[in-house]
Amino acid sequence: MFNGAILVGASERQGGEPFFAIDPSTGAKGEVAFHNASAADVADACALADAAFESFSTLTPDARAAFLEAVADRIMAIGDLLITTAMSETGLPRGRLEGERGRTVGQLRLFAGYVRQGDWLDATIDKALPERQPLPRSDLRRVNQSVGPVAVFGASNFPLAFSVAGGDTASAFAAGCPVVVKGHPAHPGTGELVARAIAAAVRDSGLHEGVFSYLPGTTNDLGGALVADPRIKAVGFTGSRGGGLALMKIAAERKEPIPVYAEMSSINPVVLLPGALAARAEALGTAFVGSLTLFSGQFCTNPGLVIAIDSPDLDRFVASAAQALSGNAAQVMLTPGIHAAYEKGVAALAGAEGVTTIARGMAADGVHRGQHALFAASGEQFRANPALAHEVFGSSSILVKCATIEEVIDTIARMEGQLTATLQMDDGDQADAAKLLPTLSRKVGRVLANGWPTGVEVTHAMVHGGPFPSTSDGRSTSVGTLAMMRFLRPVCYQDMADAVLPPALQAANPWKLNRRVEGRLEIAR
Amino acid sequence: MFNGAILVGASERQGGEPFFAIDPSTGAKGEVAFHNASAADVADACALADAAFESFSTLTPDARAAFLEAVADRIMAIGDLLITTAMSETGLPRGRLEGERGRTVGQLRLFAGYVRQGDWLDATIDKALPERQPLPRSDLRRVNQSVGPVAVFGASNFPLAFSVAGGDTASAFAAGCPVVVKGHPAHPGTGELVARAIAAAVRDSGLHEGVFSYLPGTTNDLGGALVADPRIKAVGFTGSRGGGLALMKIAAERKEPIPVYAEMSSINPVVLLPGALAARAEALGTAFVGSLTLFSGQFCTNPGLVIAIDSPDLDRFVASAAQALSGNAAQVMLTPGIHAAYEKGVAALAGAEGVTTIARGMAADGVHRGQHALFAASGEQFRANPALAHEVFGSSSILVKCATIEEVIDTIARMEGQLTATLQMDDGDQADAAKLLPTLSRKVGRVLANGWPTGVEVTHAMVHGGPFPSTSDGRSTSVGTLAMMRFLRPVCYQDMADAVLPPALQAANPWKLNRRVEGRLEIAR
Repeated sequence: MFNGAILVGASERQGGEPFFAIDPSTGAKGEVAFHNASAADVADACALADAAFESFSTLTPDARAAFLEAVADRIMAIGDLLITTAMSETGLPRGRLEGERGRTVGQLRLFAGYVRQGDWLDATIDKALPERQPLPRSDLRRVNQSVGPVAVFGASNFPLAFSVAGGDTASAFAAGCPVVVKGHPAHPGTGELVARAIAAAVRDSGLHEGVFSYLPGTTNDLGGALVADPRIKAVGFTGSRGGGLALMKIAAERKEPIPVYAEMSSINPVVLLPGALAARAEALGTAFVGSLTLFSGQFCTNPGLVIAIDSPDLDRFVASAAQALSGNAAQVMLTPGIHAAYEKGVAALAGAEGVTTIARGMAADGVHRGQHALFAASGEQFRANPALAHEVFGSSSILVKCATIEEVIDTIARMEGQLTATLQMDDGDQADAAKLLPTLSRKVGRVLANGWPTGVEVTHAMVHGGPFPSTSDGRSTSVGTLAMMRFLRPVCYQDMADAVLPPALQAANPWKLNRRVEGRLEIAR
Repeated sequence: MFNGAILVGASERQGGEPFFAIDPSTGAKGEVAFHNASAADVADACALADAAFESFSTLTPDARAAFLEAVADRIMAIGDLLITTAMSETGLPRGRLEGERGRTVGQLRLFAGYVRQGDWLDATIDKALPERQPLPRSDLRRVNQSVGPVAVFGASNFPLAFSVAGGDTASAFAAGCPVVVKGHPAHPGTGELVARAIAAAVRDSGLHEGVFSYLPGTTNDLGGALVADPRIKAVGFTGSRGGGLALMKIAAERKEPIPVYAEMSSINPVVLLPGALAARAEALGTAFVGSLTLFSGQFCTNPGLVIAIDSPDLDRFVASAAQALSGNAAQVMLTPGIHAAYEKGVAALAGAEGVTTIARGMAADGVHRGQHALFAASGEQFRANPALAHEVFGSSSILVKCATIEEVIDTIARMEGQLTATLQMDDGDQADAAKLLPTLSRKVGRVLANGWPTGVEVTHAMVHGGPFPSTSDGRSTSVGTLAMMRFLRPVCYQDMADAVLPPALQAANPWKLNRRVEGRLEIAR
């Protein structure tokens, strides 16, 4: 159950300005009073996280992996209450939330396996060369260590997979970092249920209570205080561009600046190449609308931009997409605020110079329903008005018509960084794809062929990241095992006594790690 | 030869405000007029770097390695002119500069070997699972790609190894990034000679001229314009804290913020543990002074702080160090400005409350000579006055006397981030070392036992980095092969046609890379 508590380590606190969940499908206010965490809660949570750091960051891989699995088990043990609570707080349907729960616990278990495997430690050994001339070389051993306590800001659009126990928390735990979560006010009951599951796993696992705290709240001040706390050493955030930029500024202006991994804004260009259009324009139109409108388009990888060379085949795509979209019902959006911002963004596009409306979805039959929208513009018009490339969060997209593949490339080259780009291509399009790829690979974190960007697998090879402003740090991913690397830093030990070295670097290799010795990988598992 | 040119790609330019080299050993002005690069030079160099990016970043590992080796060969081919020029511009002796040249070309060759080996690409493959339920999984392939053109700011104290063709340039080239160097005005002839060597290697290797440009200059505006140029995607810097912070601010305020890897400030605590002191206090005192005064202490890893538990053994260390220091001649410092800042810093320490002077070196017998200095303070006094922990660049150090090992740990825990920490320890000190290590590993990038921090090996395991403010980004190193990772970012390809994929990810593995497949390393070499 949940009762609106703030979780500071093992303690439950009430108090602070109350707030309530809203069911976006009806606008109804929930019954439980949640409470804004205070500056004192932030300070106490950070002090506990700092106190937990040494023991948590030096756990064996097996012990840390078991903790991640315990979190997964505890989340599943919440049962259907987690699903029904999330449904009422987000308007998302049961199937989607059950799938998201599966992804969330699967993610924790994937990290557990990767933590046990140990390659993330990047254990590297250069042995002493006592005979080297003119000077002997010391014994040098390097290993990745946890950066310190991490602040995590969950997203509204994935109340499980990108929230309290989402990818940021899972990867920070995997990397040995205590986590303080700023709970998202759009799904406070869901958040508290998951927070309690994590706290229970901390207790079950015999860990220091400071490994996890949960600070719900509605104010920017709360998040700002968390990022400003000197004990916090890195930040994970998924949300708006404005929110991410604000946290980046606070982090950069600290006495000790810290990295912020903010996943912010992307319109995810989809390029329809001529061969693919010729072969399957209608099918592409239908499939595109499926991706665009999935869960009201509330994905950071939503295809908000389609680029193609104008042609009769493109007209077939447009006709098919327009037909599919027109019959598509408006869906409940996550929050009244997100719905309002969507309507505003769509209205701005509809009224922008040179932009025509290809189609709208069916009108809303209730509150907070987003009516899907597809617009068109020429390449010239799109390039001339940067506002057309701003993300409209929800199912809104703009088709940009170019004259040549060179114009397509030029249009993408002028865009800001993106999470993804997609090529719809047939075998005959490979020459065009090869021309596009150098530009795409500079602009995005993931390039897809013949799929749609809205699915993000949690694997080793996944990159859910991209150049600014899609994220604040294009060297990172927030999904997949590589996400751990955001919360690690290398430390080198020189001529250190074997007994004092971290186990990963000891001569006997007690953790049986693959290690790089004299520049060559030595495989132990 | 050198003639004061600005090198913008393959073009030589003159013009701009002239400036001259100063021989710090005499104060004499050099004969060649060097020229400040202009804003137009910056823009042209960055445009060329951007134009060179695609071809340079997609070179085969063999071709890029050959280029790095060509740079090394061209630097050696300059011959003794490089050494004599650097001697006259820095006051450093021949032996040191010959050693530094060896390190510089050795570093380029180490990167060449590592580039060929290919593990830095981190090629990772998760194969398609077409039968997976409820949805099939796509084929996902990830590889590291170059971030884009890099701006490099050389250091005054390593005119070869941390300057025009130093670690930042070598690692950026290794990572496939074109480089625009802001030449340091303290060694302009040395810089131009090396810049011409690189430009010749670019030409010899048939690469795009924009792979390298060299912009000498004396103004902060020049560096600022370079970091602000939208085509620059990362910055490498070694220098003062003020300089690094200024560049960080410019980079953070760009429309597209970019990472700055600034190596700034460190006093490198050395902890003398009781067993080591009991066994060899006198030898430690002599060896410490050797490290402190080496090349007038002008190292970022200079031991500017010694911490120990007060004892009669420590008195023996102090007596030995004082004796060694008193007989140590003042040495020429790198520039008049560095010498002036050193004298000011030493005077401030000498006059600080609670600080006593243990010993000074011999008085200067010429201009710009730094007279070595060793001070003492109690732990309480040191912790109470943060100014005592500020870096004084040069051979100045402060001995902090504590009562217990817990006080030593507390003193270090309150310090800012450092590049290194050193333990002087015998077998009987292992328990104390184990107590210290968790704190040290949070504060520094490298922990040494029984050595001195002033030597930095260029290897795979080296970390020359550390938490802020020792560097701007404690996740990185500027020395060793890991330094390449600063200039790479991951990109994922989903279901992409094999022929269009980067070679590192193609099914046939044409580069014979070790790759991670389904989470397991598959060793190909």
